[in-house]
Amino acid sequence: MSDLQSHNPSWQLHCPISIPDNGEVITLSHGEGGRLMRRLIHEHIISAFGTMPSDSQAVHQNDPLLLMDDAARLPAIDGEIALSTDSFVVSPLFFPGGDIGSLAVYGTVNDLAVSGARPLYLTLSLIIEEGFPIALLDHVLKSVSTAARHTAVQIVAGDTKVVPRHAVDGLFINTAGVGQLVDPIAPGANALCEGDELIVTGPIGQHGIAVLCAREELALEPPPQSDCAPLTRAISVLRERMGMRIRAMRDATRGGVAAVLHEWAGASKQTLTINQCDIPVSPEVRGACELLGLDPLHVANEGTMVVAVEPGHADCAVEILRSLPEFVHATHIGSVTKKGISPVTIARTLGPEQPLDDPLGAPLPRIC
Amino acid sequence: MSDLQSHNPSWQLHCPISIPDNGEVITLSHGEGGRLMRRLIHEHIISAFGTMPSDSQAVHQNDPLLLMDDAARLPAIDGEIALSTDSFVVSPLFFPGGDIGSLAVYGTVNDLAVSGARPLYLTLSLIIEEGFPIALLDHVLKSVSTAARHTAVQIVAGDTKVVPRHAVDGLFINTAGVGQLVDPIAPGANALCEGDELIVTGPIGQHGIAVLCAREELALEPPPQSDCAPLTRAISVLRERMGMRIRAMRDATRGGVAAVLHEWAGASKQTLTINQCDIPVSPEVRGACELLGLDPLHVANEGTMVVAVEPGHADCAVEILRSLPEFVHATHIGSVTKKGISPVTIARTLGPEQPLDDPLGAPLPRIC
Repeated sequence: MSDLQSHNPSWQLHCPISIPDNGEVITLSHGEGGRLMRRLIHEHIISAFGTMPSDSQAVHQNDPLLLMDDAARLPAIDGEIALSTDSFVVSPLFFPGGDIGSLAVYGTVNDLAVSGARPLYLTLSLIIEEGFPIALLDHVLKSVSTAARHTAVQIVAGDTKVVPRHAVDGLFINTAGVGQLVDPIAPGANALCEGDELIVTGPIGQHGIAVLCAREELALEPPPQSDCAPLTRAISVLRERMGMRIRAMRDATRGGVAAVLHEWAGASKQTLTINQCDIPVSPEVRGACELLGLDPLHVANEGTMVVAVEPGHADCAVEILRSLPEFVHATHIGSVTKKGISPVTIARTLGPEQPLDDPLGAPLPRIC
Repeated sequence: MSDLQSHNPSWQLHCPISIPDNGEVITLSHGEGGRLMRRLIHEHIISAFGTMPSDSQAVHQNDPLLLMDDAARLPAIDGEIALSTDSFVVSPLFFPGGDIGSLAVYGTVNDLAVSGARPLYLTLSLIIEEGFPIALLDHVLKSVSTAARHTAVQIVAGDTKVVPRHAVDGLFINTAGVGQLVDPIAPGANALCEGDELIVTGPIGQHGIAVLCAREELALEPPPQSDCAPLTRAISVLRERMGMRIRAMRDATRGGVAAVLHEWAGASKQTLTINQCDIPVSPEVRGACELLGLDPLHVANEGTMVVAVEPGHADCAVEILRSLPEFVHATHIGSVTKKGISPVTIARTLGPEQPLDDPLGAPLPRIC
């Protein structure tokens, strides 16, 4: 399973750029607080985020990252705050539809957004293996920068650690995010009531299957694409148009849609029921899942969420979502029903309604 | 260098508890978003932080961690905010004077405190190697909890990733911290002026030497102890008594006191001069440094800072610090002088004043 058991470092898998044999690599000294580290931070990390160290003093004073203090100083935030963190250990680092850089931004931004917050600031912490090509680090940092600009969040503080060969597999990234809670905040899963309707915002299982196929070099045609993308726009449009008729939102990451439904069933003490034939699954994900014996409901997504709305409002929510080009496959998949024996049930295409499994743990390590 | 090149996992080094051969270990399924992960979080992580899942609903509602949402919802913070992040990859995980758990809390808390903030909240992100003993994880989490209580910060959000054997060496921890900026905020290194006086708050190089001796199993007697500890109390007393007469504060972590002095010299465009005979160094750190050919000024600290104060106020600052039992070795070590050729100079015990080296990178990986 581990990429280190092969002779080639894992970052070579699906590496998007050609790296010359004599290209500069990260050394232990890059992580040790001296001149080399300051140079790495200035020439590669800070410069990736748009403001060059050579810019005017005024820019320096306004950019917490450039000040390179121990902590970023940020203006006051009006009202309540949301705080989130996620570490990203995905293997391979690059996959169809994204890479560890875009994932590290969208993952934390989405966690803030589904919690009812407007994402404002991110911290970025890199753990890099000695020998990692600097050109590849630049490529990842560019993805981070593009994703941050795309979601209007600012990278304000960071940390860089370098560890000896074999102490980490290539590159791990942690992001922590701060957001401003905005009204109206969805009441959350506790508030789910009988009759509430359930929606998914797009085809499920795309991210997990895309990463798995890339890692195992399964040459499916077309290759499954990750859904790695921000949910901020969809959430802001839904909130604007539907307000408090939204009961709960959750991005269906590790554990997939099934994990969200089980968490919501547990929190609300209701039974959640979905219809198999309504669940959007792309042909390539369906094919890969059949091949690998996986249920797409258990596979991770990185830009797809489950939304619960008040009774009778699923069609409205689906219509709003489908007006956005990224969410044309949004679908009403089920509803909250009277508490039964099983917390989550699924009406299969053939046969009777069945309990939906809450797996002990999904079979896919290093998906995010 | 890498512990993985030996046959034993690195966590066995200085493991503080006896772990039965058949003890429960972390599996990949613990990181996959299913039932096993929820159980790990509830029974080991949340319970380590004092509030048990079985507590009353009122407690649930007040504890952002227990809600297990994607992001913690926190009350409004009055005024400006400080934000900081650090990843901890120390090897070995346990060393005289601390462990990765206490380090992960104090490291981020100190970064906030020296930036003029009152630390309020931490996020905690764990990256765990498959096969890591759960009993040892509990031990680390207890350290995290004790350190958080000791510094009055609340752990409000977290993340747990499990990676296959050899994809990470044992356990890495990231913490990100949010603090409230409090008045008066020290003007910072930019504001250093000729005549300003420089202080260190305790014996230098303790942390780096303690970790190095533990890792390389150098049996020094007595074993060097890490200074891993919070700086919050010292900073709050200094601020209270000295207000704006404090120019700058910085904890001397990676790169040691030398790195702080070089950063300050660069930021202020002044020359900083210190006297070797004034610098507090314990006999065991001095001995280990001589043995290993290291300069204690380049070795990392984790609870020791450099403070710059207005001319004539070093004695007052030293007296205030020495009134606290942890800082009885605080010493006035030098001053800011007219800009010379070298950014930092040191008056050696024997011989003339010399430039103090700004190393490319310290020779000690995985110290924090």
